[in-house]
Amino acid sequence: MHSYRSHSCADLTKTDVGETVRLAGWVHRIRDHGGVLFIDLRDHYGVTQVLCDPDSPVFAEVEKLRSEFCIRIDGEVKARDEGLVNPRIPTGEIEVFIRDMEILGAAAELPLQVFGEQEYPEETRLRYRYLDLRREAMQHNMTLRSDVVAAMRRRMWDQGFREFQTPIITASSPEGARDFLVPSRLHPGKFYALPQAPQQFKQLIMVSGFDKYFQIAPCFRDEDPRADRSPTDFYQLDLEMSFVEQQDVFDTIQPVIQGVFEEFGEGATVDKVWPQISYRDAALWYGTDKPDLRNPIKMQDVSEHFRGSGFAIFAKLLEQDGTQIRAIPAPTGGSRKFCDRMNAFAQKEGLPGMGYIFWRERESQKLRMRESAERGMKIGELLDDLFQRYEGEPPVELLSPLLASLDAEQQEFEKYAEVEEAAIERFRDAVSKGNLRRAVLLHNAYFGPFEAAGPLAKNIGPERTEAIRQQLGLGVGDAAFFLGGKPQAFERVAGKARDVIGEELSLTEKNRFAFAWIVDFPMYEADEETGKVDFSHNPFSMPQGGRAALDGDPLEVLGYQYDLACNGYELVSGAIRNHKPEIMFKAFELAGYGADEVRKRFGGMVNAFQFGAPPHGGCAAGIDRIVMLLAGTSNIREVIMFPMNQRAEDLMMNAPSDPTSDQLMELGLRVIPQD
Amino acid sequence: MHSYRSHSCADLTKTDVGETVRLAGWVHRIRDHGGVLFIDLRDHYGVTQVLCDPDSPVFAEVEKLRSEFCIRIDGEVKARDEGLVNPRIPTGEIEVFIRDMEILGAAAELPLQVFGEQEYPEETRLRYRYLDLRREAMQHNMTLRSDVVAAMRRRMWDQGFREFQTPIITASSPEGARDFLVPSRLHPGKFYALPQAPQQFKQLIMVSGFDKYFQIAPCFRDEDPRADRSPTDFYQLDLEMSFVEQQDVFDTIQPVIQGVFEEFGEGATVDKVWPQISYRDAALWYGTDKPDLRNPIKMQDVSEHFRGSGFAIFAKLLEQDGTQIRAIPAPTGGSRKFCDRMNAFAQKEGLPGMGYIFWRERESQKLRMRESAERGMKIGELLDDLFQRYEGEPPVELLSPLLASLDAEQQEFEKYAEVEEAAIERFRDAVSKGNLRRAVLLHNAYFGPFEAAGPLAKNIGPERTEAIRQQLGLGVGDAAFFLGGKPQAFERVAGKARDVIGEELSLTEKNRFAFAWIVDFPMYEADEETGKVDFSHNPFSMPQGGRAALDGDPLEVLGYQYDLACNGYELVSGAIRNHKPEIMFKAFELAGYGADEVRKRFGGMVNAFQFGAPPHGGCAAGIDRIVMLLAGTSNIREVIMFPMNQRAEDLMMNAPSDPTSDQLMELGLRVIPQD
Repeated sequence: MHSYRSHSCADLTKTDVGETVRLAGWVHRIRDHGGVLFIDLRDHYGVTQVLCDPDSPVFAEVEKLRSEFCIRIDGEVKARDEGLVNPRIPTGEIEVFIRDMEILGAAAELPLQVFGEQEYPEETRLRYRYLDLRREAMQHNMTLRSDVVAAMRRRMWDQGFREFQTPIITASSPEGARDFLVPSRLHPGKFYALPQAPQQFKQLIMVSGFDKYFQIAPCFRDEDPRADRSPTDFYQLDLEMSFVEQQDVFDTIQPVIQGVFEEFGEGATVDKVWPQISYRDAALWYGTDKPDLRNPIKMQDVSEHFRGSGFAIFAKLLEQDGTQIRAIPAPTGGSRKFCDRMNAFAQKEGLPGMGYIFWRERESQKLRMRESAERGMKIGELLDDLFQRYEGEPPVELLSPLLASLDAEQQEFEKYAEVEEAAIERFRDAVSKGNLRRAVLLHNAYFGPFEAAGPLAKNIGPERTEAIRQQLGLGVGDAAFFLGGKPQAFERVAGKARDVIGEELSLTEKNRFAFAWIVDFPMYEADEETGKVDFSHNPFSMPQGGRAALDGDPLEVLGYQYDLACNGYELVSGAIRNHKPEIMFKAFELAGYGADEVRKRFGGMVNAFQFGAPPHGGCAAGIDRIVMLLAGTSNIREVIMFPMNQRAEDLMMNAPSDPTSDQLMELGLRVIPQD
Repeated sequence: MHSYRSHSCADLTKTDVGETVRLAGWVHRIRDHGGVLFIDLRDHYGVTQVLCDPDSPVFAEVEKLRSEFCIRIDGEVKARDEGLVNPRIPTGEIEVFIRDMEILGAAAELPLQVFGEQEYPEETRLRYRYLDLRREAMQHNMTLRSDVVAAMRRRMWDQGFREFQTPIITASSPEGARDFLVPSRLHPGKFYALPQAPQQFKQLIMVSGFDKYFQIAPCFRDEDPRADRSPTDFYQLDLEMSFVEQQDVFDTIQPVIQGVFEEFGEGATVDKVWPQISYRDAALWYGTDKPDLRNPIKMQDVSEHFRGSGFAIFAKLLEQDGTQIRAIPAPTGGSRKFCDRMNAFAQKEGLPGMGYIFWRERESQKLRMRESAERGMKIGELLDDLFQRYEGEPPVELLSPLLASLDAEQQEFEKYAEVEEAAIERFRDAVSKGNLRRAVLLHNAYFGPFEAAGPLAKNIGPERTEAIRQQLGLGVGDAAFFLGGKPQAFERVAGKARDVIGEELSLTEKNRFAFAWIVDFPMYEADEETGKVDFSHNPFSMPQGGRAALDGDPLEVLGYQYDLACNGYELVSGAIRNHKPEIMFKAFELAGYGADEVRKRFGGMVNAFQFGAPPHGGCAAGIDRIVMLLAGTSNIREVIMFPMNQRAEDLMMNAPSDPTSDQLMELGLRVIPQD
């Protein structure tokens, strides 16, 4: 028999009854039931119940076992009594009567329990990661991660891609974040850099003629820590292809990502149609270039309703260039309590607040008025229809009875003291001028079934309020929130508010992965203060329209650059590359980089492009994020085996630490004392 | 039609004749045959012949093409004339008549030709790596590397292993080589290290209960460059398993390695039986712990033949403790010219020289003497047999006739004036004393068919020479070389000499991969000068015999530690780990490390072992070396996409380079000016 085990702890079933077996694993739990000891023996594969009664030759030793001792046992497989069968585990029909036992690794008192669901501070979990990782959820997450990466590789191979390793100790790469540096011993005073991504190398692989490249690539960015980001290294599924256009890249990566979500999504709906949304539309509709499309809310520009309105803050705002009022429709959000909470949310996010309107049913004493309004609406619609059909000049014999009815309704309204004279005047005026749409609007505004509430509605009055309602398609019980200013100043918060609203109102679907390609990124952006034009994202993307496009307004140039958004995360980013030196130099010139600087910073790639570079493009998918989504967590450290803490420290291994003076000497470095 | 291609350059065959196709690729070669232009259009997949005659609308543009332009062409597929079919390429039956052409990427004058076999200095190749990589051999090597790694992954998955990524920015690891350091920005003055191997992490993964781990892991060692070693990073197939013994690891990795060699060995013989050779035997037999077993030569200890012999150098040497004379048998090496060349080789390697003996046929005037000797030998054998059968006291009636015959032969020898009286005397003496083995030896030495030549043979005389010949099993036409001293002083050169001898005499089989496990490595070694005991290899291996073994002489302790040798390279290295804290502390104590230091240096792992560590072990296989062997090269840079040069520089990307003062400031570092 093998020294440690004949079976794993998930193997034994009824068919093994009577066999003598050897198992190894950890004491998951040990209980004393009337003098009989029950051990749940756990290994990576499962749990087997082990029994030890006082007759067992090893009873005395087994009595001394504690949780997380690693042991080897020999014993006989017996069937459990009918009533004691546990159908939830594969070994639930049997138990093993212990005959012999060996302690393979004793366990000191545990700083963190493996059995059970107890929560521990993250620092404790990271310091004793090897115990934390034994817990069921972490075993699942790590296994998931490994299986996801394996599935990605299989799918890439199946599409004819080969994986090539690119250098990790290399030169600074132009990804825009901060490099980790590595001092050179052979060249003291000089430094290597760890790659922020294999961007230049994968492009060089294309120039080298390899056609299809991928890599599960470690990437290194010295960034300030954040929950969904590792402060040191992270992994990408990096790919690049020659002789392709944007749609080819989409057609390549979609089956990989979609396939992985279908394979590991545990039954969640995985969208099969991935809309392509322009960067500008995404900003307008969702306030972000990584929208969560499970949330049906689409923001809208409602500036026209506020221009010159009684809501002075917005009206004044709109007098400035580049400003806008944006509405976030919130179906089912129509209560003051909810609206106030969202307003408070916006204040917490640093905005002065978020105006809102919500719609409720008109109060009951107004019921008759409303009914009359409804009749008026219908007449209005008929009138409207009539004017359209007869191109503005309906025959009087058709018009008269309707106008008479309208008049009757009008008289009806007048019965109600609370109906404002002015509104009726405007209504009459609209009707008499044949502006029936407006008449209907007035109808609704003053007498419709919806009553708009909230300070903002009061300020802009019922007509504008109703126009907004109509544009947003809202009704009784719904709300809308309003943010104004320069979009770049409020869009982030607007996007966040959209998320919170979708979440709080349960509008955001659960158990679904919704994808969208964000396309047509602008190549350039102007610095808000200096007006200086710089690349907005990746300087290596091909501008749409090629060289000619660079002769116009840089801020109008779009790039063949794209992101994939899923449930609010950016999962993939990529581009068709600019492989033509003359277009590249021009593109850099627009951003203020001279040819010499381009050659200095990106010499390797620019040189290569002089020797017959193929058109190429690709993308990179964030593996940690994908696994995070599949594992249902928003903390990246839950899907990394040995993550750094949020201060970029490894408390278990003690990193970073002080170098020895010999090491510094060899590297030709001196540490500047910190105060 | 797709913007760039309807087919690859390896796709078109006779069945496509008549089709209009679009191809993209590089101008591999362009020739002008009587006004018709022939282009070999190349992509990653193959080559297609493209024709352009003066009637083509794009003739003028095609005329301007030069090698390595990247182009897109449209054209019609036509069958080649019978006589012009090229059966060596898949597209050899067709050619494409060009109708339209677009230059996708123009090429400047080439510093390195892609077409043809021209050799370039390595610096040129590395500076223009993207051109070098377009060459057929490099496309093959990179593709091979990618496929080998993929095959390894598949084979590991199939055995139930999962791949887990371990940190790259981490703490210093105890592999014994020099770390690359990474200064921390968030903790100025402190440094991370890049892992020399994921050793501690993979052991922690076992402590975390994952049972089976592997990783295609980048490893980082700041070592001085060497042909078969990358000066920065290299890749290992790293694996670890819980609840295993040494043989389990062998049984796991052998099918992976053997399978890969069978799959990619292009028909070479791949040994299926992998002998297990102890470290001490390997040193004795092959002078190295990574023997090339395609070479049948096995060295032997021949000290006894030189002790007190006339060869004063060796005889004196042997009076010192720990010395030895080692013979390298060289079958078929029996010529003075060859022996002198090997002697010169040893001198070049820094030894005073290498004594040798070679055996040739005895000159013809000695023929009768030899025949008599042969008869004498046979009688000697019979006598020998007799003495054995009768346990040293054969009946006189059997002994007498044989002794009489022996006497007759003896008289026969005496006829020959050149036979030395002393030899005969010794022969008689041996016979009379019943020492028949010695009698036979004397026979052979003086009258046998072999004549030993070389100064060494003269010095030690025929008897010792013959004894050596018998021990080594050599004959006419063979040679043996001799090295003496302390084994550690000559073994390396001896091993090298064995390689050269095997190679030069064509004893080393070609087209074969021969594997051997080297096992039973000593845990400790004593420093030659100070006598201080230290770990000889990995301090984390389990000593054979466990805790008890550490109470004896440390230098006698063997570890469960092993290497796999193949064709003279170390491909795999591994161990069963020491997972018991008490054994680990004792093991370190023997090497002079106190408990505090162990906790300080390896705290992460030692702490973990207190919480129920499972027995575990594993190994790591060098991927670059495996691919090197399969690609038939001994230069590691031929199997790495973008390698550093031998000064650890990347001339293409300009690494390492000067940091900016901002970067140094952020890291809290100052560069010490170098003289």
